[in-house]
Amino acid sequence: MTKPRILTGDRPTGPLHIGHYVGSLRNRVALQHEYETYVLLADVQALTDNFEHPQKVRDNVLEVALDYLAVGLDPRAATFVIQSQVPEIAELTVFYLNLVTVSHLRQNPTVKTEIAQKGFGEAVPAGFFVYPVSQAADITAFGANLVPVGDDQLPMIEQTREIVRRFNHLYAPVLVEPKALVGETARLPGLDGRAKMSKSLGNAIFLSDSADEVARKVRGMYTDPNHLRVEDPGTVEGNPVFAYLDAFDPDKAGVQTLKDHYRRGGLGDVRVKRHLLEVLEATLAPIRGRRAEFARDRVGVEAIVRDGTERGREVAAGTMRAVRGAMRLDYFARVPDPMPTA
Amino acid sequence: MTKPRILTGDRPTGPLHIGHYVGSLRNRVALQHEYETYVLLADVQALTDNFEHPQKVRDNVLEVALDYLAVGLDPRAATFVIQSQVPEIAELTVFYLNLVTVSHLRQNPTVKTEIAQKGFGEAVPAGFFVYPVSQAADITAFGANLVPVGDDQLPMIEQTREIVRRFNHLYAPVLVEPKALVGETARLPGLDGRAKMSKSLGNAIFLSDSADEVARKVRGMYTDPNHLRVEDPGTVEGNPVFAYLDAFDPDKAGVQTLKDHYRRGGLGDVRVKRHLLEVLEATLAPIRGRRAEFARDRVGVEAIVRDGTERGREVAAGTMRAVRGAMRLDYFARVPDPMPTA
Repeated sequence: MTKPRILTGDRPTGPLHIGHYVGSLRNRVALQHEYETYVLLADVQALTDNFEHPQKVRDNVLEVALDYLAVGLDPRAATFVIQSQVPEIAELTVFYLNLVTVSHLRQNPTVKTEIAQKGFGEAVPAGFFVYPVSQAADITAFGANLVPVGDDQLPMIEQTREIVRRFNHLYAPVLVEPKALVGETARLPGLDGRAKMSKSLGNAIFLSDSADEVARKVRGMYTDPNHLRVEDPGTVEGNPVFAYLDAFDPDKAGVQTLKDHYRRGGLGDVRVKRHLLEVLEATLAPIRGRRAEFARDRVGVEAIVRDGTERGREVAAGTMRAVRGAMRLDYFARVPDPMPTA
Repeated sequence: MTKPRILTGDRPTGPLHIGHYVGSLRNRVALQHEYETYVLLADVQALTDNFEHPQKVRDNVLEVALDYLAVGLDPRAATFVIQSQVPEIAELTVFYLNLVTVSHLRQNPTVKTEIAQKGFGEAVPAGFFVYPVSQAADITAFGANLVPVGDDQLPMIEQTREIVRRFNHLYAPVLVEPKALVGETARLPGLDGRAKMSKSLGNAIFLSDSADEVARKVRGMYTDPNHLRVEDPGTVEGNPVFAYLDAFDPDKAGVQTLKDHYRRGGLGDVRVKRHLLEVLEATLAPIRGRRAEFARDRVGVEAIVRDGTERGREVAAGTMRAVRGAMRLDYFARVPDPMPTA
């Protein structure tokens, strides 16, 4: 078992949607047999900006686990781990905080952007401010070699790499320095044409949506607002219907033909959307089916998550033993040092 | 066993000196039977500004434990706990970080002062910056009702109280809100007359010093630099010899007589120092004797610390169970919640 190890995961703040599917889940499923995969249900990180809503986070841990199973993550290949049940991550976070300065954290581009997006201003919670450090703890706890990320997450991985180098240099070379695995970072626009699909914007198709809900959402999708009559020429750019087709329709030539037709005029939105719905359902129907099946066996899903968490914790505990040794904090783990004399 | 609970402790960065004795140790010994006492060997906190010197911290954990035993802390009454061996403290720290903003931490007067003193400037390590939060974790992990502190530490306790109130309000009232126990905060000047006695300034008498070392240090003490001849009048204010007599000589009237004589002239430094040495030795000789005795039984001291750490960890684990429950992070501790349906 010398497969390289991958760490991925999600903040369980809501059910996953087709944006997650295209952006990361699909890729994880493809990689899960090639790599030793750990998938973190990052409830502790979700709490950094949802600390007032612990029940929401709690409920979504199992929702997200169901989504994982539904898309085809195989618990025999991928280990699902609930972050809060691995105290070693908190321990590593506390030690790594010594290796990063406040001003360095302040300059992290990803954190900067997110603090602005979330409108924290000066009132940014310290837990959110230091989350690149806790991500370093996540990644290193599991000894991940690779972390699949989008371009925008590269500064986070670089922060982890800096912490690892500093730790290994100061104490002992026990931590694995991870690399970013930058894949095709397809980002799906929202149903309303906005750049981002998200639960809070109300513009998402969830993996847990029923066929009727998906049909309703597709029918209501934003298209080209100037494409008033079927015979009018339409615009494909910025039209989410075509973005979704690009992401989901395996028949690339067919999509190109549709785009040409739409641009030329004579192809109605209703007809394109009907095609999109078929294409989406080809992917979503089996996901929905598996989700429903797993949802009927909640004890089984609980067992999968519990088992994964236990296996993940063993890995993290191994890392922590090495870290304690390197930091000379292994007081009771071996023959005591000679006692200093008075 | 409904005694109120006290948490105290030290950063194991060097052996303890008579400044610690007068400032806190003496008081702890006096309180240990009246209160349920936990004494934290705060190695994790010591690492926040000694992260480059883990071996120093490691070595001093047992030195400080020996100092505790030497001054008369009784391990049957006081529980000695090594901080790094209680992962619950790290877990609580991570959760509490969500409840404090970066700007609020920046305004903490104690942190401000210490950042200036240590000359960190902008390069303050994040671990040091957030240490009021980790102190809140220390205090609450053990459910302390009272924390003996000097005036200068009051903002730290206030920070803990704020975190506790916020946590109890947001989640569930499971944390104990501690109070500061402000005692007589005698601060001993250094041998060189500087305001502070400290290892790094090289102006300290350690509890582990031999009788010869103490004698040598007392002989070399700074006194009144204008008191050149025995018959000259001398100054008592700012004269550490008299400060030490105030702190250690039980014969207050005798000290007053000496001060009057010194002021008047005719009392030589050599004679006062000889008296001071006797007074100090009355306290230090028995401490030194107990220290030597314990130091011969290093397995026994290891066992005391290990046993205390285990008992302390049980208390912290109890707190953590309550915290997990309050934060809805008790996934596997009870009957699972109903699974959401797809």
